[in-house]
Amino acid sequence: MGVARATSTAPEDGAMGDAGEGAGAPAGTLDGAMLRRALGGFATGVTVTTALGPDGRPAGFTANSFTSVSLEPPLVLVCLGRGAASYPVFAQADGFAVNVLSADQQEVARVFATRGADKFASVAWGPRETGAPVFRGVAAWFDCRMRERIDAGDHVIVIGEVIGFGRAAAAPLLYCGGRFAALDSGVRLSVVARAGDAILTREDGRGLRLPTAAAFGPADDPASLSGLIARWCEGAGRPTPLHSFDEPDGAHRVVYAVDADALRPSGPSWRATPVAGAADAMACPLEVEAVRAALSRAVRHRS
Amino acid sequence: MGVARATSTAPEDGAMGDAGEGAGAPAGTLDGAMLRRALGGFATGVTVTTALGPDGRPAGFTANSFTSVSLEPPLVLVCLGRGAASYPVFAQADGFAVNVLSADQQEVARVFATRGADKFASVAWGPRETGAPVFRGVAAWFDCRMRERIDAGDHVIVIGEVIGFGRAAAAPLLYCGGRFAALDSGVRLSVVARAGDAILTREDGRGLRLPTAAAFGPADDPASLSGLIARWCEGAGRPTPLHSFDEPDGAHRVVYAVDADALRPSGPSWRATPVAGAADAMACPLEVEAVRAALSRAVRHRS
Repeated sequence: MGVARATSTAPEDGAMGDAGEGAGAPAGTLDGAMLRRALGGFATGVTVTTALGPDGRPAGFTANSFTSVSLEPPLVLVCLGRGAASYPVFAQADGFAVNVLSADQQEVARVFATRGADKFASVAWGPRETGAPVFRGVAAWFDCRMRERIDAGDHVIVIGEVIGFGRAAAAPLLYCGGRFAALDSGVRLSVVARAGDAILTREDGRGLRLPTAAAFGPADDPASLSGLIARWCEGAGRPTPLHSFDEPDGAHRVVYAVDADALRPSGPSWRATPVAGAADAMACPLEVEAVRAALSRAVRHRS
Repeated sequence: MGVARATSTAPEDGAMGDAGEGAGAPAGTLDGAMLRRALGGFATGVTVTTALGPDGRPAGFTANSFTSVSLEPPLVLVCLGRGAASYPVFAQADGFAVNVLSADQQEVARVFATRGADKFASVAWGPRETGAPVFRGVAAWFDCRMRERIDAGDHVIVIGEVIGFGRAAAAPLLYCGGRFAALDSGVRLSVVARAGDAILTREDGRGLRLPTAAAFGPADDPASLSGLIARWCEGAGRPTPLHSFDEPDGAHRVVYAVDADALRPSGPSWRATPVAGAADAMACPLEVEAVRAALSRAVRHRS
């Protein structure tokens, strides 16, 4: 498939080749695949933009190039490839509708990005004022009167004036790095890493902090919890859940425990802090009260 | 502040008033605040777009209206309000750079969305070929030669040809519903809810499933784990972490245990399944092997 972010980023781009910070391509020698991957670094929602054809049959395409432009008057735009199957319909339509897909509409996105699929059979829809189809279950929709079509390279920028709209509380479907994605659920993962009487922590003036990451793995991602554990703890066993609590900002923290043969904290801020027993752990300044409970529990568990 | 998604969605819009699915505003009577909220239902990354002023001083603005347009030639666009402080610079600049912010650059987004702030003092940057500043630590950047400025209502659509770009593996900052956000970390939360000899599960033909949610709370969100527990388990204590494992699709599952005075599964699919002991739990068809381990552990823990 390929969500048509103008320069359609196909899912197989998901490997996200890393051009590296500061790696720039000089003028005239741009690598198309690298450019698509870099453009995929900008996360977006996913839309299916629809219009009614001259034969009364609806047409639509998956795109993440939707952008709001102006409030007075209310204008939005979406970019459409000249080679798209639905291009002829949009080249003459008097109006169109933008369907902002919700997190559970991945399949709709796929169908409308596939040539030849029986697109409108796969979703419940009804026509809006312009005649363009609006889908059931979308996160938001905009019914638009066609204002302007602007040629721009291999695409056309379609600008419409919003004449009707609606939204639901549904979480939106996201597209980033060539993959569908969803909004963060607000879960943070931490680990109490222990070796002998030492616990790996960071002291940053606000208290002791545990190694924390937003994702659990994979182990070869140095920013994940598994990656931290692999980097710092020689011979570490599998982390086991130890404690969980809600943080003041609403995030939910799950604390794991891992036993390691050796702690090798690297970098200037992390260090192995000796914690002889529960009394010592309780005497440490801790980032939040709940981390004190986690450490205390970890120490009790060991002794 | 207000990330300038053309129709600048301010954070206080975050309450996300729900126009309701199918609620449409008829032509000519569009409510601006409602329209902004609906437009905010489309999630995006966040950029700071920069250019060099005629006096040699850099200018920049926070925007989420960045869109890739064409690959042949490589064109991108960004929308800028006519009233923006940096508008005069972009109205005559020969080039500009788009900085796609990473998840840890919320503060950069805020500073460049604030009038009068000493913007470029807040971030490490260097000029690219067009002279436009590119920031350190961005998820991606695009250095662009100005191609066209198109008037569109209260904004101007700035189209540039990409002459240099780069990207890093950094996770992007997101903006949705008037708030900054991040990509989902792929963590799923489940609970083994027990009362007497019953465990709350769902049997869907593929095996027993545990109550699962993407977010832990709040308890008044029926789709969160806390919400499920509140709805189904009278007198439930605080859930405690029990088990965790990686799912076949790469998601990480954390399983909690909760003891309840009474289980009240509602809806057609959930039910309280009697589990007399470990042997019975092991005899159940389970969605994945690791859930069997979690149930088995929960049963052992009780007896």
